[in-house]
Amino acid sequence: MAVRFAVLGAGRIGKVHAKAVTGDAQARLVAVADAMAPAAQALAEQYGCEVRTIEAIEAAADVDAVVICTPTDTHADLIERFVKAGKAVFCEKPIDLSLARVKACLEVVRAHKGTLMVGFNRRFDPHFRAVRAEIDKGTVGEVEMVVITSRDPGAPPVDYIKRSGGIFRDMTIHDFDMARFLLGEEITEVVATAAVLVDPAIGTAGDFDSVQVLLKTASGKQAMISNSRRATYGYDQRIEVHGSKGAVSAENQRPVSIEVATGAGYTRPPLHDFFMTRYTEAYAAEIATFVAAMAGKGKAEPTGEDGLIALALADAAVKSVAEGRVVKMSEIL
Amino acid sequence: MAVRFAVLGAGRIGKVHAKAVTGDAQARLVAVADAMAPAAQALAEQYGCEVRTIEAIEAAADVDAVVICTPTDTHADLIERFVKAGKAVFCEKPIDLSLARVKACLEVVRAHKGTLMVGFNRRFDPHFRAVRAEIDKGTVGEVEMVVITSRDPGAPPVDYIKRSGGIFRDMTIHDFDMARFLLGEEITEVVATAAVLVDPAIGTAGDFDSVQVLLKTASGKQAMISNSRRATYGYDQRIEVHGSKGAVSAENQRPVSIEVATGAGYTRPPLHDFFMTRYTEAYAAEIATFVAAMAGKGKAEPTGEDGLIALALADAAVKSVAEGRVVKMSEIL
Amino acid sequence: MAVRFAVLGAGRIGKVHAKAVTGDAQARLVAVADAMAPAAQALAEQYGCEVRTIEAIEAAADVDAVVICTPTDTHADLIERFVKAGKAVFCEKPIDLSLARVKACLEVVRAHKGTLMVGFNRRFDPHFRAVRAEIDKGTVGEVEMVVITSRDPGAPPVDYIKRSGGIFRDMTIHDFDMARFLLGEEITEVVATAAVLVDPAIGTAGDFDSVQVLLKTASGKQAMISNSRRATYGYDQRIEVHGSKGAVSAENQRPVSIEVATGAGYTRPPLHDFFMTRYTEAYAAEIATFVAAMAGKGKAEPTGEDGLIALALADAAVKSVAEGRVVKMSEIL
Amino acid sequence: MAVRFAVLGAGRIGKVHAKAVTGDAQARLVAVADAMAPAAQALAEQYGCEVRTIEAIEAAADVDAVVICTPTDTHADLIERFVKAGKAVFCEKPIDLSLARVKACLEVVRAHKGTLMVGFNRRFDPHFRAVRAEIDKGTVGEVEMVVITSRDPGAPPVDYIKRSGGIFRDMTIHDFDMARFLLGEEITEVVATAAVLVDPAIGTAGDFDSVQVLLKTASGKQAMISNSRRATYGYDQRIEVHGSKGAVSAENQRPVSIEVATGAGYTRPPLHDFFMTRYTEAYAAEIATFVAAMAGKGKAEPTGEDGLIALALADAAVKSVAEGRVVKMSEIL
Repeated sequence: MAVRFAVLGAGRIGKVHAKAVTGDAQARLVAVADAMAPAAQALAEQYGCEVRTIEAIEAAADVDAVVICTPTDTHADLIERFVKAGKAVFCEKPIDLSLARVKACLEVVRAHKGTLMVGFNRRFDPHFRAVRAEIDKGTVGEVEMVVITSRDPGAPPVDYIKRSGGIFRDMTIHDFDMARFLLGEEITEVVATAAVLVDPAIGTAGDFDSVQVLLKTASGKQAMISNSRRATYGYDQRIEVHGSKGAVSAENQRPVSIEVATGAGYTRPPLHDFFMTRYTEAYAAEIATFVAAMAGKGKAEPTGEDGLIALALADAAVKSVAEGRVVKMSEIL
Repeated sequence: MAVRFAVLGAGRIGKVHAKAVTGDAQARLVAVADAMAPAAQALAEQYGCEVRTIEAIEAAADVDAVVICTPTDTHADLIERFVKAGKAVFCEKPIDLSLARVKACLEVVRAHKGTLMVGFNRRFDPHFRAVRAEIDKGTVGEVEMVVITSRDPGAPPVDYIKRSGGIFRDMTIHDFDMARFLLGEEITEVVATAAVLVDPAIGTAGDFDSVQVLLKTASGKQAMISNSRRATYGYDQRIEVHGSKGAVSAENQRPVSIEVATGAGYTRPPLHDFFMTRYTEAYAAEIATFVAAMAGKGKAEPTGEDGLIALALADAAVKSVAEGRVVKMSEIL
Repeated sequence: MAVRFAVLGAGRIGKVHAKAVTGDAQARLVAVADAMAPAAQALAEQYGCEVRTIEAIEAAADVDAVVICTPTDTHADLIERFVKAGKAVFCEKPIDLSLARVKACLEVVRAHKGTLMVGFNRRFDPHFRAVRAEIDKGTVGEVEMVVITSRDPGAPPVDYIKRSGGIFRDMTIHDFDMARFLLGEEITEVVATAAVLVDPAIGTAGDFDSVQVLLKTASGKQAMISNSRRATYGYDQRIEVHGSKGAVSAENQRPVSIEVATGAGYTRPPLHDFFMTRYTEAYAAEIATFVAAMAGKGKAEPTGEDGLIALALADAAVKSVAEGRVVKMSEIL
Repeated sequence: MAVRFAVLGAGRIGKVHAKAVTGDAQARLVAVADAMAPAAQALAEQYGCEVRTIEAIEAAADVDAVVICTPTDTHADLIERFVKAGKAVFCEKPIDLSLARVKACLEVVRAHKGTLMVGFNRRFDPHFRAVRAEIDKGTVGEVEMVVITSRDPGAPPVDYIKRSGGIFRDMTIHDFDMARFLLGEEITEVVATAAVLVDPAIGTAGDFDSVQVLLKTASGKQAMISNSRRATYGYDQRIEVHGSKGAVSAENQRPVSIEVATGAGYTRPPLHDFFMTRYTEAYAAEIATFVAAMAGKGKAEPTGEDGLIALALADAAVKSVAEGRVVKMSEIL
């Protein structure tokens, strides 16, 4: 029997998840909720489902699971409400920008033996998954060093930056999760450098736009992350993993793979310029994993705990930049 | 208002088109027909449409267009019946294996001012389309030479081969259409070589499995096609176009683009191993083009005439191999 | 003891070979001859050897081998003279533009049990050699189809074209030799198409600038060659070999392998733009092979016979274009 | 008139420079010295020069310049001696492992207005130079972030490790120089992580084999360096530079660029496995630059000062690992 879903929040990411749900043969979209009535209405019409209030969804007998796509500051509250209501919860990252709030929320989830999956979509990218599969197969031997390049095509509005929790919690958090996904051992030390090179207004807002992070585990495995809010050539998303027997890497993706050769050289088109087109398959696979887990096939991972640790790594990076030193994770968690 | 469709034939390719129709916001799948009741039933259930007979669809007021996915020897008859019934027709290639029958069929289409689009799906591949777009933009100047590589992962059953019309009419026909699509000028001369290298049974059946073709237009533009029924590394589909100012090419596609580096070298995974996964986007874009044309946006191309010429080029190649000489298209059409 | 060399002809290609000889630890450059005294003088000074006349070299006791780099119409005569004088001969391709003259020349070489190696330099390119090595190792199984792309950055002066014997004998001859080198079986059938697209003056001179050739062996192995006198993006030299177990290919070479990424896309520099920089390593390896063969290590291949067959294939291509048909090699040789 | 050279030290790197000198039309190799007579003798015979003592070279009127290829602990002394003797000096990196000793040595060079060039060969790699050229042309705009990957095919003997000054002074020093070469602004902050993952004996010797470094300039430009003593797939040497307008990168180099495609995927051969074959062209270009500078064309760079700063960066990295914090360069220099 299909899993019956409600999507909370009909904005940009809500639309992505609504599409993923309706495209999954094992899932059915029953309802959508949004404070903005027209947004909810449009989505409901497109996919032939009902518009309901949060409260109605909470009480509904015909909803098994919710996808939380509302603003960040409502995530933790909604997770708690729907776990208490007995619904499985898929929540967009982050759970919250405060580590204490995340911990409290996870306490509630645990107390109610709830199901909570956090939306680190990149784990579901087929290319990155294939990298992880090679690690699991032992192709590269023992993992030693991970290199993650993650550069956005352009900076978001400063208004967004202000509410984002800063680049480490907003953008690097994906790379922290990816590093954990690939290292296969918990990170114990974090050090970072940061600068404002793209837009002075970002600096004025107290944030950075160009950062570098080094990570280390207890046994000495290491990772480096390079982030920028600027990449004129598209959405730059690469990983490479070096191990005792070899390396495995995932290259960038472009919408069209042609090459033009002229006297000026050989030119391929720019990369995808938007995370939604870059990660289309990942969003679908993410929901499919959640649905499958509810049918007892596989785990609903990444979990709330994964969300907690990624946020803690971001906090450590913030502290590292502020204090100009290596921060131990035992200071944070 | 959405275009209302019936799909005739619920086999492998019928399923592909049914999916494309239901995935198109401007189209609606109303009915499916198949001589095999269970096949039709399964497709109808999956997409929530009705099972009907050919006759019922012919007479239906709620069907605007049909997609013909039945066996090749029924194509021409069905095209004539549905054009006469006032339906727009999308027909899988080829219209027929006999040039005379195709001509007669197109006569009927013209007489009834019918709409007929033929399923040369590769014209809709985003990468090949991008190649054509560069030509149209003038990036490579005047087109001079086109090179088309098209190699199947493996040979079809000999039983299929026997009904196929031979490799030139079954497989190369796609490349003939692609050559025309890219050359921008009608082909006037054809010469080919052919051999049986993959499977002697194919030779026993009177066909070849490894062929090469040279094409030439009146002004001297040229094209070469390389075909094999064998490619251990996947579905090899490449084109390159050389012009007076430069060249443009489309590389192969693979499902996952990672690279593993070890002492044995740098290895990327094999290509797609099936035309349906390789051309997923092309099938969707093809139906979208047909739907759009019915709404007055763009043309329903490739047309029946395009189907006719591609078949004539195949006939010329057959004749060239048999007679060991360059065949002029004026001998064929 | 080092092999003592004289270079006949101090032009462009003579300089290349003089450099290769002096760079080979097993060889020594003793003398250079050229009808143009200053050219010979310059080369002699650069490498510290003597200027001598052809006659003096013929009679010299301190010369073991000659490298013939004089104009094509002198090759056959010089080969005969120096073979008779007991010198080992390395001759730039072609031996002559007339098949009859080549045959007569090889008769003389055989009668004197002379050593004659012909300068098909591409066999010595490390990348192409590596392709052949994979074939020899059995990596791709039984060779089935060979694709050779060979495009010059620009057309030579029409004056050169007139003396060249035509594109098939001047340019494609390299590809004919490469096809034989890779197919591993003699070619029995040739068919070609040809056009003038680059420069009308080439057509006026009775030649073509854009040609395509299909080759076939008795067992059905096939090859295709694509040639043009125009490639705005540099010297385009690629081969791919398809076999029963897989394929092996050699990509283009560029002097500098960087990539620039901007909003306009990802751009790599053009290819080498000159055969001498593209094939620098090949020229050195070619002379090293000749020197080694004289010391009893390996064979002095490609031989005069290889030169003969490549020319015969060119003659067949010329005939094929003239008569619009497949030409059997038994008609030519 | 050609620059007359003596090479001090006839070991591995001495041979490389002797070859570069003799291959340069503007240079002449006059003498070679080595404590091991047979090594000096062999080199002298190969290139037709004399064996002399250090003292004889110091006093020689026919020597304009020396190339110092002796053990590291003799570099500073020899630089001082030959600068005092009025010879131009090219010295292999590093000048010394002690910052104080380097400073004292440079004092002597300055006092005698000597010419000292330090052998950071990678600045002369044609690919890396092309990266720098793009920066200089403004292609990527203002440089923001530099990523340097530098992984050795295998660890040197522990005996070598012990005398090496540690990975930062022995291996990363090249990358520090490259970062400076590309950033275009002095580095002010250094932080590093380090581990022993390849060989425990390296740890026992007090060194690391896997390190990561972050660098920052006063204006916020950043660089990251990834080093390992292990790379099963060959000598991994890549750089990428991200700027305000785009990025430029240099890919790895392999001796042979073929690709084999089978059911197992597409495989290219491993990279160069040795710094001498990887950087053949760089060594020649380095000496050519030194020779040209002596003829008044261009500068003898990298200078002694460049050698000093690279060493200081290595010292900072050592300190950063030891103290778990960001080290300011003002603490070191």
